[in-house]
Amino acid sequence: MKSAPPRNALYAQSGGVSAVINASACGVIETARKHRRQIGRMYAGRDGIVGVLTENLIDLTGESAATIRALRHTPAGAFGSARFKLKSLEQNRTEYERLIEVFRAHDIGYFFYNGGNDSMDTALKISQLGQAMGYPLTCIGVPKTVDNDLPLTDCCPGFGSVAKYVAISTLEGGLDVASMARTSTKVFVLEVMGRHAGWIAAAGGLAGQRPGDAPHIILFPELPFEEAPFLARVKQCVTDYGYCVIVVSEGARFADGRFLAEAGTKDAFGHAQLGGVAPVVANLVRQHLGYKFHWAVADYLQRAARHISSKVDVEQAYAVGKAAVEYAIAGQNAVMPAIQRLSSKPYRWKVRPVPLAGVANIEKKVPRSFITADGFGITPACRRYLLPLIGGEAYPPYQAGLPSYLRFRGKTAKRRLKADFSL
Amino acid sequence: MKSAPPRNALYAQSGGVSAVINASACGVIETARKHRRQIGRMYAGRDGIVGVLTENLIDLTGESAATIRALRHTPAGAFGSARFKLKSLEQNRTEYERLIEVFRAHDIGYFFYNGGNDSMDTALKISQLGQAMGYPLTCIGVPKTVDNDLPLTDCCPGFGSVAKYVAISTLEGGLDVASMARTSTKVFVLEVMGRHAGWIAAAGGLAGQRPGDAPHIILFPELPFEEAPFLARVKQCVTDYGYCVIVVSEGARFADGRFLAEAGTKDAFGHAQLGGVAPVVANLVRQHLGYKFHWAVADYLQRAARHISSKVDVEQAYAVGKAAVEYAIAGQNAVMPAIQRLSSKPYRWKVRPVPLAGVANIEKKVPRSFITADGFGITPACRRYLLPLIGGEAYPPYQAGLPSYLRFRGKTAKRRLKADFSL
Repeated sequence: MKSAPPRNALYAQSGGVSAVINASACGVIETARKHRRQIGRMYAGRDGIVGVLTENLIDLTGESAATIRALRHTPAGAFGSARFKLKSLEQNRTEYERLIEVFRAHDIGYFFYNGGNDSMDTALKISQLGQAMGYPLTCIGVPKTVDNDLPLTDCCPGFGSVAKYVAISTLEGGLDVASMARTSTKVFVLEVMGRHAGWIAAAGGLAGQRPGDAPHIILFPELPFEEAPFLARVKQCVTDYGYCVIVVSEGARFADGRFLAEAGTKDAFGHAQLGGVAPVVANLVRQHLGYKFHWAVADYLQRAARHISSKVDVEQAYAVGKAAVEYAIAGQNAVMPAIQRLSSKPYRWKVRPVPLAGVANIEKKVPRSFITADGFGITPACRRYLLPLIGGEAYPPYQAGLPSYLRFRGKTAKRRLKADFSL
Repeated sequence: MKSAPPRNALYAQSGGVSAVINASACGVIETARKHRRQIGRMYAGRDGIVGVLTENLIDLTGESAATIRALRHTPAGAFGSARFKLKSLEQNRTEYERLIEVFRAHDIGYFFYNGGNDSMDTALKISQLGQAMGYPLTCIGVPKTVDNDLPLTDCCPGFGSVAKYVAISTLEGGLDVASMARTSTKVFVLEVMGRHAGWIAAAGGLAGQRPGDAPHIILFPELPFEEAPFLARVKQCVTDYGYCVIVVSEGARFADGRFLAEAGTKDAFGHAQLGGVAPVVANLVRQHLGYKFHWAVADYLQRAARHISSKVDVEQAYAVGKAAVEYAIAGQNAVMPAIQRLSSKPYRWKVRPVPLAGVANIEKKVPRSFITADGFGITPACRRYLLPLIGGEAYPPYQAGLPSYLRFRGKTAKRRLKADFSL
């Protein structure tokens, strides 16, 4: 029996990048290269799905093994990512049809979409439309989100590294404040990502190993912010420990749903000033308690911090990329490789396929049982869940004091379609 | 000839802490322990000079070698530091006399003061007063400042590690923005420390290794901020590269001397809001150019980031601590061990004594020749100066995903004076 000729594969990155999304790319590409009978050329969308729609594809086929290997230790999106949510099939069928057109022009038989909730939804729709249009296509979602909010997977590649960065930063910042508090700063506020789910803020809690350790207060988006108990707790901490360290999620909200970050800072001209829940929290403390304070906003530094990535996270990111290709080769479709936890101590995990339909557009928040009764800390159950995810260090190579990250340009594949596509 | 009996030594940390100030403490203590004939008991001021004034001393004599060794990889001030500037001798002689009283009560013959400009001035005054009061005392300054602004030394312990952190963060944040810029954030602003000198901001420039690399703009406190050329440059970068990364010193100022950070952000109640030059710069960009932006404020994270300390910095911090004791033993007084650069490539340096009188209260700023003509970047000379200082990694040991930092309490020495001292 003669086997079918190989078909080409397309990989695209989607949404906010992470320290390890390129490790997933590395897993996809290295594994595809081991299956030359099934997978011919390997492409990537330049700037994610935007590159696919505009037929701006990177041809990865000729890239050296060393270049592909370097993806594993390079943060952010080496091929470019995009914040570009396709509309529903009913609202904009043209976009989906264009994707299939581009796929057809390049004989793409395998599509690997590396992203979060929205992207899993997009991958599912593309898979369905391929079927409806009689175009044979295998769509596999590759999970990625620092927010750790995908269902059906124990954790999300990208999260472990942010968690490690935030835990270490909280630990280090806490030691700093502790050593200065007698005569200087008494309250330190660290703002972290996670607009809807408080997983990253929870990770700050790992820094606290003994009673009285920083962080003393975590503000989760899952619970409404209440000023009075918050201020009382800050005061109590300063009284008891001499200082107070607060980790606040950018998504912290009042009971009425408004973000704290919107709580009315205005510039000199009276315009609402964008961004920053940390200064809002710090100013609350100043106004009501008068303590000297400092605040930090980690922003992109936290999700790009490949220099202190979790080894577990890097391995899982690679593993889901590898599994995605293996599932595709084995004839699975519209699935996502998920992480399944087998045990917490010692930490053991495996990768298994879950249907995209079960993942798309569903957000997994921090359960109430992971937050202490007072709403300001993490429970032992939360710690047991989080701790393995920051395990191990996976340092990048260095040259002259700086990490040797890959700066990838890549070759643009020759266009085959005449029509341009405007976004 | 019978040698004099040993006298005791006192070590105190002063001012803002760093990732490696404890490495200097380690150098002082380990070296003192090798000179038992000259140095008897070893004390530290709890919370720096405040602990000395209030006779709250830590007796380090019985601490294990392992504990002292762990100081080398532990950030912030293990014994507590203080922002407490002694007044001039004329204004408050009582404070200085109290210090001598405490020294006398504990037979302190050697005082090692680990700090920046102010602390070198204090050490000098204490040394002079000891002489005037007929109390034999050896005062040695141990340099420490992340600001890198001490004269007579090529660089300051503490700076190399912040520089490495800021260079890596700029590199990583820059890769993040580059990968998202097509559809999302186009301008990223990173605020770094350095209220009077732009050395830390300059270090961000090390991230740029090829033309077009981030950072595209550095804002130094040494040069007045001018809105029009700044905005023109941002626009040009976004046009040319698709994005723009800005590193701004917290000390950036207008031509009239006002800090940008004071540029008039008010909260909902009309109170001036404290802190944050990054949001001010980001909002300027938004108002005039409309680009989507993000900003980060590293604050304490940068100076406490022992997880990514420069190996050179750790070695120099230890070396100045060690040299301080050796100078004291050798009979030198009122000096500070300084770093002398012997060559940049390969990097070679040694430690030599300089008089405290030449260091006290003098600030070394970034010279104009280190800043490009347009005011927005660093010159090759600046790069040659900075690059060796971030050389090598000195990772701390880890346990369960987190650095094993020392949490030092220490034994409080028995008080010998009856009188309390109120600050």
